[in-house]
Amino acid sequence: MINRMSIRVLLVILCMMAISCKKQSVNKVEEFSSTKQEHPSLILTEQGVKDIRANLGRIPIFDKTLEATKVEVDAEIKNGFDVPLPKDYSGGYTHETHKKNYVLMQKAGVLYQILQDEKYAKFVKDMLFEYAKEYPKWPIHPKPRSYARGKLFWQCLNDSNWLVYTSQAYDCIYDFLSEDERNILENDLFRPFADHISIHNLKFFNRVHNHATWGNVAVGMIALVMDDDVLLERALSGVENADYDPNEKDDDGGYIRKEGQAIGFFANVNDPFSPDGYFTEGPYYQRYASYPFLIFAQALQNKRPEQKVFQFKDSVLIKSVNALLNLSDKDGEFFLLNDSQKGMSYFNSSLVSAVDIAYHFGGNNPELLSIAKKQDEVTLDDAGLAVALGIKEGKEKPFVKKSIELSDGANGDEGGVAILRSYGLELVFKYTAHGLSHGHYDKLSFALFEDGNEVVQDYGMGRFVNIEQKGGGNYLKENKTWARQSIAHNTLVQNETSHFKGKYDIGSKYHPTKYVFSVTDENLQVASAKDDKAYPGTRLHRTMVAIKDEAYETPYILDIMRVVSDSSNQYDLPFYFLGHVMQANFEYSKMPVPEILGKSDGYQHLYKEASASVKEGNITLNWLRNNKFYTYTAITSNADEVIFGRIGANDPDFNLRNEQTLILRKKNVKDALYVSTIESHGRYSPVSELAVNAYSNIKKVSVVYDSKEYTAIKIDTKNDKSKVFIISNQKNDKDLEHKLTIKNKEYIWKGAYQLIEN
Amino acid sequence: MINRMSIRVLLVILCMMAISCKKQSVNKVEEFSSTKQEHPSLILTEQGVKDIRANLGRIPIFDKTLEATKVEVDAEIKNGFDVPLPKDYSGGYTHETHKKNYVLMQKAGVLYQILQDEKYAKFVKDMLFEYAKEYPKWPIHPKPRSYARGKLFWQCLNDSNWLVYTSQAYDCIYDFLSEDERNILENDLFRPFADHISIHNLKFFNRVHNHATWGNVAVGMIALVMDDDVLLERALSGVENADYDPNEKDDDGGYIRKEGQAIGFFANVNDPFSPDGYFTEGPYYQRYASYPFLIFAQALQNKRPEQKVFQFKDSVLIKSVNALLNLSDKDGEFFLLNDSQKGMSYFNSSLVSAVDIAYHFGGNNPELLSIAKKQDEVTLDDAGLAVALGIKEGKEKPFVKKSIELSDGANGDEGGVAILRSYGLELVFKYTAHGLSHGHYDKLSFALFEDGNEVVQDYGMGRFVNIEQKGGGNYLKENKTWARQSIAHNTLVQNETSHFKGKYDIGSKYHPTKYVFSVTDENLQVASAKDDKAYPGTRLHRTMVAIKDEAYETPYILDIMRVVSDSSNQYDLPFYFLGHVMQANFEYSKMPVPEILGKSDGYQHLYKEASASVKEGNITLNWLRNNKFYTYTAITSNADEVIFGRIGANDPDFNLRNEQTLILRKKNVKDALYVSTIESHGRYSPVSELAVNAYSNIKKVSVVYDSKEYTAIKIDTKNDKSKVFIISNQKNDKDLEHKLTIKNKEYIWKGAYQLIEN
Repeated sequence: MINRMSIRVLLVILCMMAISCKKQSVNKVEEFSSTKQEHPSLILTEQGVKDIRANLGRIPIFDKTLEATKVEVDAEIKNGFDVPLPKDYSGGYTHETHKKNYVLMQKAGVLYQILQDEKYAKFVKDMLFEYAKEYPKWPIHPKPRSYARGKLFWQCLNDSNWLVYTSQAYDCIYDFLSEDERNILENDLFRPFADHISIHNLKFFNRVHNHATWGNVAVGMIALVMDDDVLLERALSGVENADYDPNEKDDDGGYIRKEGQAIGFFANVNDPFSPDGYFTEGPYYQRYASYPFLIFAQALQNKRPEQKVFQFKDSVLIKSVNALLNLSDKDGEFFLLNDSQKGMSYFNSSLVSAVDIAYHFGGNNPELLSIAKKQDEVTLDDAGLAVALGIKEGKEKPFVKKSIELSDGANGDEGGVAILRSYGLELVFKYTAHGLSHGHYDKLSFALFEDGNEVVQDYGMGRFVNIEQKGGGNYLKENKTWARQSIAHNTLVQNETSHFKGKYDIGSKYHPTKYVFSVTDENLQVASAKDDKAYPGTRLHRTMVAIKDEAYETPYILDIMRVVSDSSNQYDLPFYFLGHVMQANFEYSKMPVPEILGKSDGYQHLYKEASASVKEGNITLNWLRNNKFYTYTAITSNADEVIFGRIGANDPDFNLRNEQTLILRKKNVKDALYVSTIESHGRYSPVSELAVNAYSNIKKVSVVYDSKEYTAIKIDTKNDKSKVFIISNQKNDKDLEHKLTIKNKEYIWKGAYQLIEN
Repeated sequence: MINRMSIRVLLVILCMMAISCKKQSVNKVEEFSSTKQEHPSLILTEQGVKDIRANLGRIPIFDKTLEATKVEVDAEIKNGFDVPLPKDYSGGYTHETHKKNYVLMQKAGVLYQILQDEKYAKFVKDMLFEYAKEYPKWPIHPKPRSYARGKLFWQCLNDSNWLVYTSQAYDCIYDFLSEDERNILENDLFRPFADHISIHNLKFFNRVHNHATWGNVAVGMIALVMDDDVLLERALSGVENADYDPNEKDDDGGYIRKEGQAIGFFANVNDPFSPDGYFTEGPYYQRYASYPFLIFAQALQNKRPEQKVFQFKDSVLIKSVNALLNLSDKDGEFFLLNDSQKGMSYFNSSLVSAVDIAYHFGGNNPELLSIAKKQDEVTLDDAGLAVALGIKEGKEKPFVKKSIELSDGANGDEGGVAILRSYGLELVFKYTAHGLSHGHYDKLSFALFEDGNEVVQDYGMGRFVNIEQKGGGNYLKENKTWARQSIAHNTLVQNETSHFKGKYDIGSKYHPTKYVFSVTDENLQVASAKDDKAYPGTRLHRTMVAIKDEAYETPYILDIMRVVSDSSNQYDLPFYFLGHVMQANFEYSKMPVPEILGKSDGYQHLYKEASASVKEGNITLNWLRNNKFYTYTAITSNADEVIFGRIGANDPDFNLRNEQTLILRKKNVKDALYVSTIESHGRYSPVSELAVNAYSNIKKVSVVYDSKEYTAIKIDTKNDKSKVFIISNQKNDKDLEHKLTIKNKEYIWKGAYQLIEN
């Protein structure tokens, strides 16, 4: 808020100093711009270009990227370009061509500056003039699916992408053009373009959302090139709008904006990022949003250093890059939090920018160099040069991903996500807020990875991004009916109804509460959180522990989900193991043909393939995934039902992946204590055909104490040892001493939990 | 036969020359052995040990293997060993321990020779004496599953494995032992052991089968160490058996032996290998059998060079290694022909031996060095030294896998297998004989690989080898009821009945006939074969063509399956695409819940998930696998039915993989012409989220001519070009000229087929 205010104040002062202060008058505003009007000045600077040119041929990673870019652009220049009349959704020809065009212009602009070969400037100029000729004639894009339709693309979002990239190209060839030429481009193309995605689409522009971020940044980037402070102010603070309706929603069912909410670029930085740098929509969308956030921050820092954008909110933009890298598995693939497509990773080009910018403007953190080295690519600008020089000088240090908790919410008080990392296992425990319009109904859910492979999965999203065959590459209806529903996640479902009744209005108001996060002992790491809003009258408390037993090679996860309710309910706890069932210790009967598990809330997409009635004791499921053996051991009560389910019912277009789940169902109970362990314990080689440690190391898991105050779980291992894990359910003070007697044995410890040899 | 005769003759001569020729008398026979009685002399020779020791520290790949072996054996020596009373199936403790023991003894023996450290000799000696003490007391193994039960293991097969390895260990420490010690070992352990797997289990020993190969070689190896020519003769020629019953079968339903069939080692080399070196059971079992074949050949060559084992049958053992390497995909994983577990590759230790031995005894083929280099391991013997020196001297050349046809049958006249390799695609077209007891009912089936990934799959086998949780790691009942049935393969099924009624007795009598194999033009490669025995009265003719169209980046496969029958039938042609369905060009209706497709012959394991009635024209199925886009385009007739199936029905223990298939069904027709194309045409990146060439390049496939004499298929591509592929159905002479008029256009060509621009 302070920053947004100060820029307003600054602008007022500037206007007062000026003789006249006409809106839209570039020449007038120029006089008051705080830095010299030079070009390039966004991602490349005059000094930067000099430095780059002085180092060319001696900075391997930069030289390599430059050469690859040159080869690519040269081929395209040879092929010629097309500026077709827009008509397609993503995946279609016109969409993909306009997308290709802006990427090419950005690259050609940079090549012009670095190589000083006018053919690149001419390529950009010719294409821009073609756009300037056609743009005024084009109607709103004919495809009707978006709440904010663009002109080049079916949604303003993609039009904004175009302008963010094209602004950089324009900046690079600015001095190559005559003033008359610039006037044509600005009046026929850039200004109307900026207006279309802002004042003509306020639902899109005036909100806090990744859409608006792109919109704000697009307008901001072109404003910086043109040195248009009025347009810049629009980017930074949004457009005043008398007609604003707080009930408006977007295509995904998300609210456009809360009453009284600040808008514009700084609001878009402030609200979605927690003080830890966690982006509330999750890493998949942060990756997407990080490009505009950081590319604009870079440009703003270069042209308006007094804005101190990188210091904003205690350097949250720099922190966000670190947070994002920490939300990836061993191979750099992002964890699946909210709508996310599997396989997205820090090798995405926006992360190349993000890492380089965070390095250059964030204090030259040498750990980032090791990520940049893996990316094997840098941005062709001042930031990329800094990284290339750092690598050349051997400054990199390993980026060590440790266990981490990232808070959610603008103030860091809306839950969070915990990553427990232990000897190759990575447990992702999610107790974040809803995540805006990309959120899932998955409070207290988790996923487990080992060595970069998902073992207990989060389904991700119901979408094949940019694959036109699948619903134009857009969200499929199964994203809403399946992927976002609670039963699609490894979390508790009450009465076959999703959390918050699957309603965004409700879900977006609440968040779980962090309870414990403690990872100082690497052999005993604990994350615990509570929720009492997903199902009114029902209180959920889940504790996930990574325990490394000295007797065994790999750690195991202990999962305690404590449910207390005012009413009797049916509870389902699904377990989405990935891999092939090897063995279960209970007798199940497979149905001749599968049945559909339920009617709504995602249950209509699950087949019931087999079921079992189990008794008090333990059930185990042993499975094989990627040539590793895993075992799930869960405590059961009499009359519990176990269901083997498979995804894929009511899926007329084969949009879903037909993966398995095991559901532990408790019927007609008020309270329930779900306790299980997950072990990675062995491996198989199809080459040597040897199976090593194919069986679980755990003999028995049992509840030895459970009250409002404490829950204690005993784990007997096959080496005839046992341990007891005790958690205090209500007091999480670190220094508080607890005393508890279980079966005549007295346990005394300090802090919320303890693991004790028995 | 000649070789088997000549060894008999030799033995007779030797016996005549001798004063007395008592069977079982080692000392006496020794006098007549053709080489000096020295030790070691099997895989290591006295000279070889000298050479190895002279080169140590200067032969990196050898030194590395030696060091790894030393580390492994030293650790085991420290841990001590166990010789437990046998009781388990594979995967169980006693099974795995005896297995570990023989591997360790073999390694320790070699280490003793190379490092000349007596601790290794002592380790072997102690273990051998423990076995000598226990073996006589042990009963037949308690597990009853095998037709030939061992004493250490549940089947004689594994006992034979033990003796093959242990003989090598004994050879290495032979001179370390006193004569008395040797007498104890030979009388209490080795001779009774050899007798158990031979004269006490004639069903196992006296046959042509991989079981017998191991048995023969086990007896032969220990005979060579002990210089016992009588025992050696037993290994080479089998045991005379008056009680032989030609109707005897083994556990897998395979006949023990045909009437009048030769037996013993040379028969086991002669019969299963075709003159091209193809092993009739397929590469998975060849890999398993290649170890005894080659290790014994090596020993025999070293001790009895006059046998000229490596020249036998025009050097078939050396050829077999080359054939086996050619039956692997880009990553070295073997193609799935008959019973095979996925993932087995030339990185298996038996292939390390095979490659090293083939190099050392087969003329130092430098291409084998590049495989050895990838294996990054050599055998610790004379052969391994030769390879290590070859690599050190930089002699290796790339092993280039080209398109190849390998005949099946001892005389090469029982069908074969064709591998068409074209720009990353590898098509495996199978028209072999049955493949003994490991054969599948899959005449004229195929599988397709791209870049080392299976795209159109062969299911492989229903077994998780050595994973005890799954049926003791042995064959599962689904191997017989599903994996071997015709419907589990990409081939034609008539009236829901497997080829040869799924009967081994019938199937093993017949084989398809090669028709064309021509790969001289790499852009037009053709393999064609016929079968008229799978279904009496029905003639099948399948032609598979790899066509590289100059306009497109990747080739496509044209598949023509021509069916002519005396009666009206239902025909099913399944297509086991692997991956996720993107789009079909026909309307299908998914059933609310799947139905079971049929009652027997594998159909009982398939769910019908969706179906469609299609009309005359083309159906297309576009799918995504490993981020590559594929399209199947098939010609359909009115009233054809398309079925989307999924494996997994009647699978009470989740033994099957739930993968998909598309079945094209024609009902109540006598003749049928199935024509389809398979294209790999595009790719997707989940990192850049770009889909490139997501759609097929083929506009239409149509039959333009079809008669008893000729079939002509027209392929229209999206660049408005078209080509016609014509095949002569009855005359495959290379030089014969054909003339055919189709729609007033005259086509003239020479040879069985032609592809003509239209």
